[in-house]
Amino acid sequence: MSYPNHLLKLIDVLKKLPGVGIKSAERFAFQLLEWQPEHLSQMAEIIRQTPEKITHCNTCGCLIDTQVPCPFCLPQRQQQTLCIIAHPKDAFAIEETREFRGLYHVLGGVLSPIDGLTPQTLRIPSLIQRIQKHQIQEAIIAIDSTLEGDTTALYLKQELEPLSVKLSRLAFGLPMGSAIDYIDGGTLAKALTARSQF
Amino acid sequence: MSYPNHLLKLIDVLKKLPGVGIKSAERFAFQLLEWQPEHLSQMAEIIRQTPEKITHCNTCGCLIDTQVPCPFCLPQRQQQTLCIIAHPKDAFAIEETREFRGLYHVLGGVLSPIDGLTPQTLRIPSLIQRIQKHQIQEAIIAIDSTLEGDTTALYLKQELEPLSVKLSRLAFGLPMGSAIDYIDGGTLAKALTARSQF
Repeated sequence: MSYPNHLLKLIDVLKKLPGVGIKSAERFAFQLLEWQPEHLSQMAEIIRQTPEKITHCNTCGCLIDTQVPCPFCLPQRQQQTLCIIAHPKDAFAIEETREFRGLYHVLGGVLSPIDGLTPQTLRIPSLIQRIQKHQIQEAIIAIDSTLEGDTTALYLKQELEPLSVKLSRLAFGLPMGSAIDYIDGGTLAKALTARSQF
Repeated sequence: MSYPNHLLKLIDVLKKLPGVGIKSAERFAFQLLEWQPEHLSQMAEIIRQTPEKITHCNTCGCLIDTQVPCPFCLPQRQQQTLCIIAHPKDAFAIEETREFRGLYHVLGGVLSPIDGLTPQTLRIPSLIQRIQKHQIQEAIIAIDSTLEGDTTALYLKQELEPLSVKLSRLAFGLPMGSAIDYIDGGTLAKALTARSQF
């Protein structure tokens, strides 16, 4: 005997969440069945309202509440330093370090033609325009060192070099608290070549 | 800088799903942000409609679609055998074995006074009534062997014995494909005492 129809639908939609398989989706669904109707309505409403309530800043591309000025673009932030990130979420992680007070520019991904992510779809034209128009002094490329990330960084270097902007990229090396005998060879090699005087 | 307000709300509501902590909820929320508005509305609608579309059968307590006859209570099923289960989900698992063609009775949990689960809240009065009224011949207690499960089984034995119904309980022993040296002592002890001639 299969589950009631609506339960199957519920499991199906929950299975679309990342990393959620059939067993977790079932567990979620059976839990939701025990919720009060008003709590279900509340959850439904929050999910439904998401596109109206959250938007991307037109300038930097960061995630912001609609109808409030973008907190990442406030005039009191350093206007001549720009941090180039792949995803809006990265800005929150960088903000948490409290080491950066400049502006952000979200690319919306990394170059991956197979997924349809090309320089045009990636907000690179608006990046170039922004650097030119606002006389950005330094652009920090804060993109992961993956195959696509490195390609994107190299592409950006090639595109931004003619603009007389100082280009830098986040340092790669050992993470804090790591054990050298457990770290992967690629990271260890980067840490060695990028060693600094002590 | 914290996430936009609505994003915090979304993370908060997703965190209420079982086994979902802050990191998974964030991952779910950021994924939902990339969904098309119509897919979000669809998900919201499925969640909101759940209490209208799924109900419990008044007789057996199993989960069923509203406005269809309960498939667990159909007249072609054996009407004199009753399987007593703690949760509606258990009925689907037992149906999958294809070893049982009788009726079900969902208790709605196991006795646990600390959680407010007493014989009255547990659909035990309706169980007794049902056994008496429909001349049930055999009642199978299909409840986990936990502290509360065993208590519930013993309580049911005490309540149902005067009703001249044959009472049985699911067998406990080694699960299929288990490794004896990895199995817990309690299960191994049960398997030994319940050993059968080979």
